[in-house]
Amino acid sequence: KINGDRLWDRLMEIAQIGGTPNGGVCRLTLSEEDKKGRLLFEDWCKGLGCSIRVDAMGNLFATYPGKDPYLPTLLLGSHLDSQPTGGKYDGVMGVLAGLEVIHTLHDQNYVPDRNIVVASWTNEEGARFTPAMIGSGVFSETFSLDYAYQQKDKEGITLHDALNSIGYKGTDSVKPNEFQYALELHIEQGPILEREEKQIGIVTGVQGIRWYDIHISGKECHAGPTPMDYRIDPMQSVPLLLTELYKISEVFGEDARITIGYIDASPAVKNTVPEKASISLDIRHPNEDQLTKMHEFVLSVIQTIDKESKSSIELEEIWHSESVVFDDNCVHAVQQASETLGYPHRRIISGAGHDSVYTSKVIPTSMIFIPCKDGLSHNELESAKKEDVIAGTNVLLHASLQLQHK
Amino acid sequence: KINGDRLWDRLMEIAQIGGTPNGGVCRLTLSEEDKKGRLLFEDWCKGLGCSIRVDAMGNLFATYPGKDPYLPTLLLGSHLDSQPTGGKYDGVMGVLAGLEVIHTLHDQNYVPDRNIVVASWTNEEGARFTPAMIGSGVFSETFSLDYAYQQKDKEGITLHDALNSIGYKGTDSVKPNEFQYALELHIEQGPILEREEKQIGIVTGVQGIRWYDIHISGKECHAGPTPMDYRIDPMQSVPLLLTELYKISEVFGEDARITIGYIDASPAVKNTVPEKASISLDIRHPNEDQLTKMHEFVLSVIQTIDKESKSSIELEEIWHSESVVFDDNCVHAVQQASETLGYPHRRIISGAGHDSVYTSKVIPTSMIFIPCKDGLSHNELESAKKEDVIAGTNVLLHASLQLQHK
Ligand SMILES: NC(=O)NCCC(=O)O
Ligand SMILES: NC(=O)NCCC(=O)O
Repeated sequence: KINGDRLWDRLMEIAQIGGTPNGGVCRLTLSEEDKKGRLLFEDWCKGLGCSIRVDAMGNLFATYPGKDPYLPTLLLGSHLDSQPTGGKYDGVMGVLAGLEVIHTLHDQNYVPDRNIVVASWTNEEGARFTPAMIGSGVFSETFSLDYAYQQKDKEGITLHDALNSIGYKGTDSVKPNEFQYALELHIEQGPILEREEKQIGIVTGVQGIRWYDIHISGKECHAGPTPMDYRIDPMQSVPLLLTELYKISEVFGEDARITIGYIDASPAVKNTVPEKASISLDIRHPNEDQLTKMHEFVLSVIQTIDKESKSSIELEEIWHSESVVFDDNCVHAVQQASETLGYPHRRIISGAGHDSVYTSKVIPTSMIFIPCKDGLSHNELESAKKEDVIAGTNVLLHASLQLQHK
Repeated sequence: KINGDRLWDRLMEIAQIGGTPNGGVCRLTLSEEDKKGRLLFEDWCKGLGCSIRVDAMGNLFATYPGKDPYLPTLLLGSHLDSQPTGGKYDGVMGVLAGLEVIHTLHDQNYVPDRNIVVASWTNEEGARFTPAMIGSGVFSETFSLDYAYQQKDKEGITLHDALNSIGYKGTDSVKPNEFQYALELHIEQGPILEREEKQIGIVTGVQGIRWYDIHISGKECHAGPTPMDYRIDPMQSVPLLLTELYKISEVFGEDARITIGYIDASPAVKNTVPEKASISLDIRHPNEDQLTKMHEFVLSVIQTIDKESKSSIELEEIWHSESVVFDDNCVHAVQQASETLGYPHRRIISGAGHDSVYTSKVIPTSMIFIPCKDGLSHNELESAKKEDVIAGTNVLLHASLQLQHK
């Protein structure tokens, strides 16, 4: 069994880096806080004799040496970055749980047959750079390095420059073929486990996600002297667009998700009809066919309203992460570990995207969930019970040992 | 008659300061560009023997000496600041026209009976700090200096700090009682004069303006795992709110104006249901009673939707500029000048707010409008004809001389 106090103390210590007055964390990827978090994690790993590698995306790999360094390896981990108003668990718990697994082996002087690598992936959140999970996305060759480097944050800083600015554009080449299996522990970020009083979610897959920017173009003019019927006002298209888009909930039922995170107007001045506005749109469904139908629904809403409205409206698709089914062996190992340890558990599909989506494209992968309070995440009040964090990490340890011997 | 080439050349020269690639101007109040514009204007004034005063709001006053320095004075001018994507005429034309009036007198070695003061007011646009016309607003004692100093831009910089940062927190005390009359030349910023082929608008008043921020509060959560019926999503209140608010056009007819310049969501991340959103709202009507009814309409929309929706919705009123009727003597002087000079003209009510709104509270005031292309303003493509700029400035000169002798 793992050392729960040590793990919990580390979680609370790293939460100070970027800690907010409301008890949350703001540790945006490739920020100075992210750098501090990475360095602390590296220190902890080095204390166990791990070697550290950093690839061209700033993904961090800490290797705990096994008996045969040439055998394919087990990959644990998650991400250290957070939302701007994020919590203490999303991502970082999975990284520190991986560290705790190797620390437990180290305590026992147990040398595993194979190396164990604990990774922290760059820009999982997608809060600073688009899309989410771009670090593991490049690792899995879903995105090219060039594409990733060109992504810009809201200040116009490229991911490439941000990597350089904190000194994390690495030179190590870390390829999927050195890994045999991958496991990730994470909070559920939704209400199911808590409601059903299960301590462990055996994650069998991840729902599909599509991201868009809807661009509305009009004509900038003065809010006072310009008659209403002279205006080509992007904001006047917003109510109809949103009314129609939110119908996705009714049309596609309770498994469908739709989120509008923000609407950016330009020039964003009180007394000027904006030149343009853009709406961020996130839609999700566990069933990829249904997600395709939701996509077609969005297309037809845009086309209809573009025709009816004075402004012109365009849909830009910026990310599509297809629904994923995790590897049977990995799912089975998590199931067995939960049963052996006697934790109440159930199978579950992830509503959030995770780095495991991309590792699963190139390495047999699965995930372990634990409950979080009120199902709340991407919120400074995000919270998880110490006993659940410990349970999840014990499952991670046991599933890891089992997969080591496959 | 004024020197049209000199005036035009100055307009084009100052338009380089903050000039944009699209032919517009970005000279936000109290920016480095604003400072450069102010210094150029001061140089021109000093070349004519003017003395310069700057008050605690950074309002600039250039005094051209008359025969009797103790007689109440004529106040000309407008503002040198621009919208972020503004044009070459809004504001600056009125300042340089005032300068051209005194330059013309200077050319003729004509010493007026009374001093003439050309002013440039701070933050007329209201694009950087709220509300618009705050410089003339403090001058007229509509706002306290403290209130003005506390206003913040989107970066959180106070107006007070911005004044200091460009060295324009002045120490001169300039009071309304030193002035007898005030005149301001401006582009119409709307389509009426152009459509009716009039060169001069004799501005008899300004419509009323009310500004609000509508605050919607919800609960931040994850876009993926959070079921739709768990959410308290501020963005989901937006379509109904906007649909109801835009009905102002139908209910109050074509004289009513409603503009939503932007919607700010926080934290503004694609995969997070926002904690809160705020909508900027600008409503206007020439008739103050109708504007009051529009205000009540807004109140009742907010109350109704606040009750019906899961989010809580609050209305914050941030500015009310009541409709204004200009001084008869000043209006008459502009009318007579237009007739004498033979320019096609009509009476008109301003749709935009102007510094004259606030000077008119403490000094008899009126305005002169000239047409602008397609009625377009608050747009980089804003444009006015040289011959109209000249006509407007000639009317300003003649009306000024007439008022000098009253
Ligand atoms: N785990 C997590 O919050 N990932 C962010 C990616 C997404 O699901 O939008
Ligand atoms: N003239 C002008 O554009 N003023 C800005 C104030 C307003 O009317 O909103």
